[in-house]
Amino acid sequence: MEGPQIYEPLTPESLASRLGGLEALTNCLGGVADQWQVEEIGDGNLNLVFLVRGAKGAAIVKQALPYIRLVGDSWPLPLNRAFFEYHALIRQAERDPGSVPEVLYFDEDQALIVMEFLDQHVILRSMLIAGAHVNNLGTRLGQFIARTAFRGSDLALPIVERKSDTKLFLDNRALCNITESLVFTDPYHDAELNHHNPAVDGVVADLRQNIKLKAEAQALLTKFVANSETMLHGDLHTGSVMCTQDSIRVIDPEFATYGPMGFDLGMMLANFVMAYISQPAHRSPEDLASYQGWILDVIKDLVAAFNAEFSTLWHGERRGVLFPHSLFEDQQHDASLPLQAKKREIWEDALGFCGIEMHRRTLTLAHNADFEAIEDASFRGELEAQNLKAGARLIMERHGIADVDAFLATIQTTEAAG
Amino acid sequence: MEGPQIYEPLTPESLASRLGGLEALTNCLGGVADQWQVEEIGDGNLNLVFLVRGAKGAAIVKQALPYIRLVGDSWPLPLNRAFFEYHALIRQAERDPGSVPEVLYFDEDQALIVMEFLDQHVILRSMLIAGAHVNNLGTRLGQFIARTAFRGSDLALPIVERKSDTKLFLDNRALCNITESLVFTDPYHDAELNHHNPAVDGVVADLRQNIKLKAEAQALLTKFVANSETMLHGDLHTGSVMCTQDSIRVIDPEFATYGPMGFDLGMMLANFVMAYISQPAHRSPEDLASYQGWILDVIKDLVAAFNAEFSTLWHGERRGVLFPHSLFEDQQHDASLPLQAKKREIWEDALGFCGIEMHRRTLTLAHNADFEAIEDASFRGELEAQNLKAGARLIMERHGIADVDAFLATIQTTEAAG
Repeated sequence: MEGPQIYEPLTPESLASRLGGLEALTNCLGGVADQWQVEEIGDGNLNLVFLVRGAKGAAIVKQALPYIRLVGDSWPLPLNRAFFEYHALIRQAERDPGSVPEVLYFDEDQALIVMEFLDQHVILRSMLIAGAHVNNLGTRLGQFIARTAFRGSDLALPIVERKSDTKLFLDNRALCNITESLVFTDPYHDAELNHHNPAVDGVVADLRQNIKLKAEAQALLTKFVANSETMLHGDLHTGSVMCTQDSIRVIDPEFATYGPMGFDLGMMLANFVMAYISQPAHRSPEDLASYQGWILDVIKDLVAAFNAEFSTLWHGERRGVLFPHSLFEDQQHDASLPLQAKKREIWEDALGFCGIEMHRRTLTLAHNADFEAIEDASFRGELEAQNLKAGARLIMERHGIADVDAFLATIQTTEAAG
Repeated sequence: MEGPQIYEPLTPESLASRLGGLEALTNCLGGVADQWQVEEIGDGNLNLVFLVRGAKGAAIVKQALPYIRLVGDSWPLPLNRAFFEYHALIRQAERDPGSVPEVLYFDEDQALIVMEFLDQHVILRSMLIAGAHVNNLGTRLGQFIARTAFRGSDLALPIVERKSDTKLFLDNRALCNITESLVFTDPYHDAELNHHNPAVDGVVADLRQNIKLKAEAQALLTKFVANSETMLHGDLHTGSVMCTQDSIRVIDPEFATYGPMGFDLGMMLANFVMAYISQPAHRSPEDLASYQGWILDVIKDLVAAFNAEFSTLWHGERRGVLFPHSLFEDQQHDASLPLQAKKREIWEDALGFCGIEMHRRTLTLAHNADFEAIEDASFRGELEAQNLKAGARLIMERHGIADVDAFLATIQTTEAAG
């Protein structure tokens, strides 16, 4: 490829001429480039996404823009997020093969990644709003989170590699800054870009009056910024998962950073909880119980699969500096005891991050379609109030919530209405 | 200076000719270089240390060796530790003015730091063995630990600066590797370089049989490797403090890394505790109670000063992303509640790190002179046994040890003898 080295955003018109010589694309698409069909399909908040179809197949070309698409060029955002997305994708592919779209090509100057087109796959959030089912969903996501958490940490990696990776992702500052302020802090004060449904004014005021809650949220932020135990996806919600009825792929890891193991798990749980809480607005009365029951099963499967997979890896692949065999197996001592403590810590952290995500998705800049798609503001407010109050309980009571049943009971026993 | 760019260790004979043109030295020493008196005074484990005297004054020239001096050239150690020592010293000087020797010059290629000569200052450990007093000792060290902990963290620094500093110190891998294995893991298995007094064989076997203890030690290692909340000294024991009766300077931060706030505090406490426990072998019966009482007062002062200074900084200099005023003061909410929780977390971590340091100083490569100077192996064993058992109690009971009085009671109620 002889493309320009100076960054320039692609357009549907320029794509074939600029990338037509790229072997990664021609191999995959076949035919001649000027017969490719190019469609810009980016519905996300940050990037350009092109679907390119040729005689033989299709591929995705994703290119970062130098600003946040959702907000416009008044909020600049560095192009190097494509660099971090690329580096996260190749690590996730190695740590959990088949979990992410295959990367076909990366151009750092153009902030551009060419990747596998996930034919027939739909964003999971849309499926949950539409009432669709995905086989094996919770199990597959629980495995993904366990495998990436374990295999990116000092439990598995040589510490030199983990430290140099931590250094690499420490430069992903712009996107981490968004998480730091937008997720952890903005929900709890009147931040400039916040907006929320006036129907939950009372609940919001209660949250912001709650000094203990704000202290806990900041303790969780402290963990997020200062704990670098594994490489996180960093933005693992139901909009970052694409599915068919039988296939699951995790996408969009541009917020990747080294952080605490409970973060991805908590974010993912939060987004299923919000799907669950918002269902009364999306289902007919006769379908509601059944579909909500399915979401609860997904959550249970997810937690069970995370725990099972993390335990398997602990016993089978623990080769890093932490909890070495020299202290346990080599002395005929079972390493299950520290495993239980580690899983407990991850679980309690996850519950806290889950509560925070539930708050920020109702109160700050980027709301969830699960709630936003509900036209009746009053009904939406009732469900959002349940979501906000349940999130606060998770943050405050997380050290006492023993397992997934207690977690779900906390959600279900939190009343709707403000 | 026109010195060679290829690293070459200095000798007392070559120093004047190689550094005689260095303004930082000539300004300080005066006279002509060939009249300087040069003496190699390094009694430490790692480096060359030259005391250089001229007509006008004196200075210290410290140069790293490419191996561990204590072990010999069979254990190579990178020269870049001088780079990290330099960067730590200038940060400590900024965060707690007057706490460290002034840096006069740094040569990265030669792994060489020229610094203020601390006239009349003696290594604190020797003073504690000799029974000497230092005014204000605990207070000054408590302030140093609080100031460097707070001012190097996201409580105070712009997060961009803290992250770029974290990156910088992540390259200090060789020395951190020593801490990771030698301090946290080697005490609990039969590591190659370990040695201990056969008189404590029974206690050592008990420690290594204690799965919960080993699990807690590894949980503390997890915090050490994966938590990057502030810049640590990294090796803050009584051999890293030089004093006169009225002056205190902290030296040798080549183990500097970003880590948990409780680490330096715990290491320092451990070394005072070991001084306390070993006193019966160093004092006459009539002096023992009084001098041990003074050490206890130093420990109490240290903890009180740490808490007071950390609180002052929390209320007065909290300008980072964590616990921002927007969530507390700006909403007329007192930030004392999260301060208490933060101090509690630091304290419990410090107790754990304290116990680990007490173990590794009796069981692994680098023992403490406090115990090593005791000739009677049987008597030494009794005191070492108290030290080992008290260390284990601190690690296991740390979440229930409320304050410094409870901490000291834990030490004092642990019996000597194996």
